[in-house]
Amino acid sequence: MKKQKIVVALGGNAILSTDASAKAQQEALISTSKSLIKLVKEGHDVIVTHGNGPQVGNLLLQQAAIDSEKNPAMPLDTCVAMTEGSIGFWLQNALDNELKEQGLDKEVATVITQVVVDPKDKAFTNPTKPIGPFLTKEEADKQAEESGAKFKEDAGRGWRKVVPSPKPVAIKEIKTIQTLLEAGQIVIAAGGGGIPVIQEENGFLKGVEAVIDKDFASQTLAELVDADLFIVLTGVDHVFINFNKPNQEKLEKVSVAELENYIKEEQFAAGSMLPKVEAAMAFVNNKPDSKAAITSLENLGELIDSESGTIIVNS
Amino acid sequence: MKKQKIVVALGGNAILSTDASAKAQQEALISTSKSLIKLVKEGHDVIVTHGNGPQVGNLLLQQAAIDSEKNPAMPLDTCVAMTEGSIGFWLQNALDNELKEQGLDKEVATVITQVVVDPKDKAFTNPTKPIGPFLTKEEADKQAEESGAKFKEDAGRGWRKVVPSPKPVAIKEIKTIQTLLEAGQIVIAAGGGGIPVIQEENGFLKGVEAVIDKDFASQTLAELVDADLFIVLTGVDHVFINFNKPNQEKLEKVSVAELENYIKEEQFAAGSMLPKVEAAMAFVNNKPDSKAAITSLENLGELIDSESGTIIVNS
Repeated sequence: MKKQKIVVALGGNAILSTDASAKAQQEALISTSKSLIKLVKEGHDVIVTHGNGPQVGNLLLQQAAIDSEKNPAMPLDTCVAMTEGSIGFWLQNALDNELKEQGLDKEVATVITQVVVDPKDKAFTNPTKPIGPFLTKEEADKQAEESGAKFKEDAGRGWRKVVPSPKPVAIKEIKTIQTLLEAGQIVIAAGGGGIPVIQEENGFLKGVEAVIDKDFASQTLAELVDADLFIVLTGVDHVFINFNKPNQEKLEKVSVAELENYIKEEQFAAGSMLPKVEAAMAFVNNKPDSKAAITSLENLGELIDSESGTIIVNS
Repeated sequence: MKKQKIVVALGGNAILSTDASAKAQQEALISTSKSLIKLVKEGHDVIVTHGNGPQVGNLLLQQAAIDSEKNPAMPLDTCVAMTEGSIGFWLQNALDNELKEQGLDKEVATVITQVVVDPKDKAFTNPTKPIGPFLTKEEADKQAEESGAKFKEDAGRGWRKVVPSPKPVAIKEIKTIQTLLEAGQIVIAAGGGGIPVIQEENGFLKGVEAVIDKDFASQTLAELVDADLFIVLTGVDHVFINFNKPNQEKLEKVSVAELENYIKEEQFAAGSMLPKVEAAMAFVNNKPDSKAAITSLENLGELIDSESGTIIVNS
């Protein structure tokens, strides 16, 4: 395979599955790094993005626990920035060490990334993403009155703040990412889908309480850096149709048109496989000479060596 | 003044003085950015470092508040990485907007920075820097037994964990910082003195529970990027001798030799002005054709225009 520019999107759950300690999360990323370095060894340029769902969830709970005037809880945009720092550090440190182990002379950089969203995005009128602690109705009403935030009842477990999940429009730090790529560095960017910002009338960027889907942010990034290959890592080697049914079938090479039909058939779970499939389709749609892939971290080597995994092509 | 490479170190207290809300801290950084952009407008290359004392302090308290297996408190190195993310985001966003306001086409990047310290640094045998919550003697003893951490009684207010404050030896992401500088970007780096890491026998870098003085980390960074000018920002326009006495005198141009005498006279407060003076001295000592300056943010324009402020030269 000739040298390619590859964007790899890691799931937040690939970093934190059961053990939430820093040690366990760092160990997961050490293992991840061994797979990612295979791409580097083959000579490819690599950009890594990652989720932050469980990490920012825990952080929001910690911040809310002793929220006071002296030690106030930070807003969601700031908390996303914090997890870009922490997960970025863990991942860059793990990659640094694996590069050292492999005798490769290469730098790794984490870029704190602001992702621009459209304030007119429909998501803002219908926030759906629950974040932070479970509250009583009284607490939720009080916070709603004070901050204007919206709250919804969550499956009998209490009330939770809901925030919008708008689509990414632009990546503010794209030139930084490109500069580092051109210098041959491994770049970690758009962690947690990026820090959501809107552009105000005077052109200023302002953080907002929202969550950007990391697969869509990664797709936008992949397009902007003109990637050859966009890989979405998930828990399974392949995307399946008729998943968990007797006629379950794994998808190998699949076109956007075929996937559109499968989506109509509701083959992919919303909030899980569906956004990954949609992000992959959008990428190859907007860049018809490119490919996207959905596979597991464990299968990453096989994907590169022999195109094992679900490969999405324009047609 | 000809084009210079300038490292500016901001105090953590310049970001958080009394109001700890994200809004107030962001407003402080908007004001800071207006001063910093003056340097950019004059054509200088600018690297900004910053403290994180109050921010990481608050974060440690939040993390400790609901420390549990499900939501464990993160170690200090990870918390420093988090504040590099949050303060970096606030500062880069404020700088972005001020650049926009001034019609300047320039990028700003925050680099998550690991700073290497020597595990044989004497600081490790005598940890002195108190961090995190105040505990009872029983709680402290229990944590000491569990984690090996050291605790000290703090002025009658309870027991606090103490961590070492080793000297910085190297900056892992120096090539990233240089690449971005050469591309004309404003770089935010080594926030909070950097994430402290030690090099293990196999060459791997590993985070440690320590605090690196941000003035010394900034000095190391200034040397490594071959800066012409290293500016330490503080609350006053000048360094004073006989501070708050009838014969108080402000220092304008001052040599390393003169400062050495003042240090012998104990003219500068330990943990406050002393490390700033020592970092400035070390910088010009190691780079005799350069200058260091200690002044206030408000006086930054005057410093550049007319060398107002305390200017430290080799001789």
